[in-house]
Amino acid sequence: MDLPRIVLEPIGVVVGGRSEAVDDDWAAVEADVVLDERFADDATAGLEEFSHLDVLFHFDRVDPGSVHVGARHPRGRTDWPAVGIFAQRAKGRPNRLGHTTCELLGVDGRRLRVRGLDAIDGTPVVDLKPTMREFLPRGELRQPPWSHELMSGYWHAAPDAPPR
Amino acid sequence: MDLPRIVLEPIGVVVGGRSEAVDDDWAAVEADVVLDERFADDATAGLEEFSHLDVLFHFDRVDPGSVHVGARHPRGRTDWPAVGIFAQRAKGRPNRLGHTTCELLGVDGRRLRVRGLDAIDGTPVVDLKPTMREFLPRGELRQPPWSHELMSGYWHAAPDAPPR
Repeated sequence: MDLPRIVLEPIGVVVGGRSEAVDDDWAAVEADVVLDERFADDATAGLEEFSHLDVLFHFDRVDPGSVHVGARHPRGRTDWPAVGIFAQRAKGRPNRLGHTTCELLGVDGRRLRVRGLDAIDGTPVVDLKPTMREFLPRGELRQPPWSHELMSGYWHAAPDAPPR
Repeated sequence: MDLPRIVLEPIGVVVGGRSEAVDDDWAAVEADVVLDERFADDATAGLEEFSHLDVLFHFDRVDPGSVHVGARHPRGRTDWPAVGIFAQRAKGRPNRLGHTTCELLGVDGRRLRVRGLDAIDGTPVVDLKPTMREFLPRGELRQPPWSHELMSGYWHAAPDAPPR
């Protein structure tokens, strides 16, 4: 297969939130996504009418040498099956791209306030899309038990989260 | 903002389905996603236990010169508001990245059969992730009326779709 490489220019960056990657308790984490100065404020016009945002970002702190290309046990848990890197959402993946739907709390020109974005301070953002009901899964969703176990604490509020 | 460029190597390609981009009627379109030979078959191990797949792809047929960086009327419809490129999911967007959740019909090593992927034959794929309920929007989803109107025919089955 001979496909040309694709060069991306980050459109912005995550500012604030967590400074280190941890596995769980992301629900209450708030941060800003700040767009690059090459965009005018109208690049986000109308975005405030959406409650949620799909954020595509780059796991730039993941060492390219640690990227998996075959199968592995998620989180190293040998009580869960070894599954292919494309059957899990681990960050050590080819192209190191992340995709998360988070809450959009506010829009101030090129600065967006979000909650529940599992990307750390300084993470390059490569795209933002408004979340639409019509792009949610069509038909019944099915997934294996290990994936529910893995996600069981992912969106919990951290014990030390400030009250809201 | 001084963020380094990011270089992606496509992980695979869309084979089959539509050969030209059209706006609507994507629901019944079936295609294969074929992974690059650099991956072993176990890169998709366990994926068949998921019903849906998040596909990240590159709108490579979009002329970079036609990418929007400000606001525009979606589909040129002046009866809808002009909204920023990050408040819509149009393909003429910075970095030309697409994200769609589609049905996973079958897995045969590096060849995946999907339905409802709105990417045309030959489109480079940059990531695949299993769709998990826990990554769907948390909290109530809100979006403006124009977006529902725009999407009203998007997933319809094409009139000439074969019976299933």
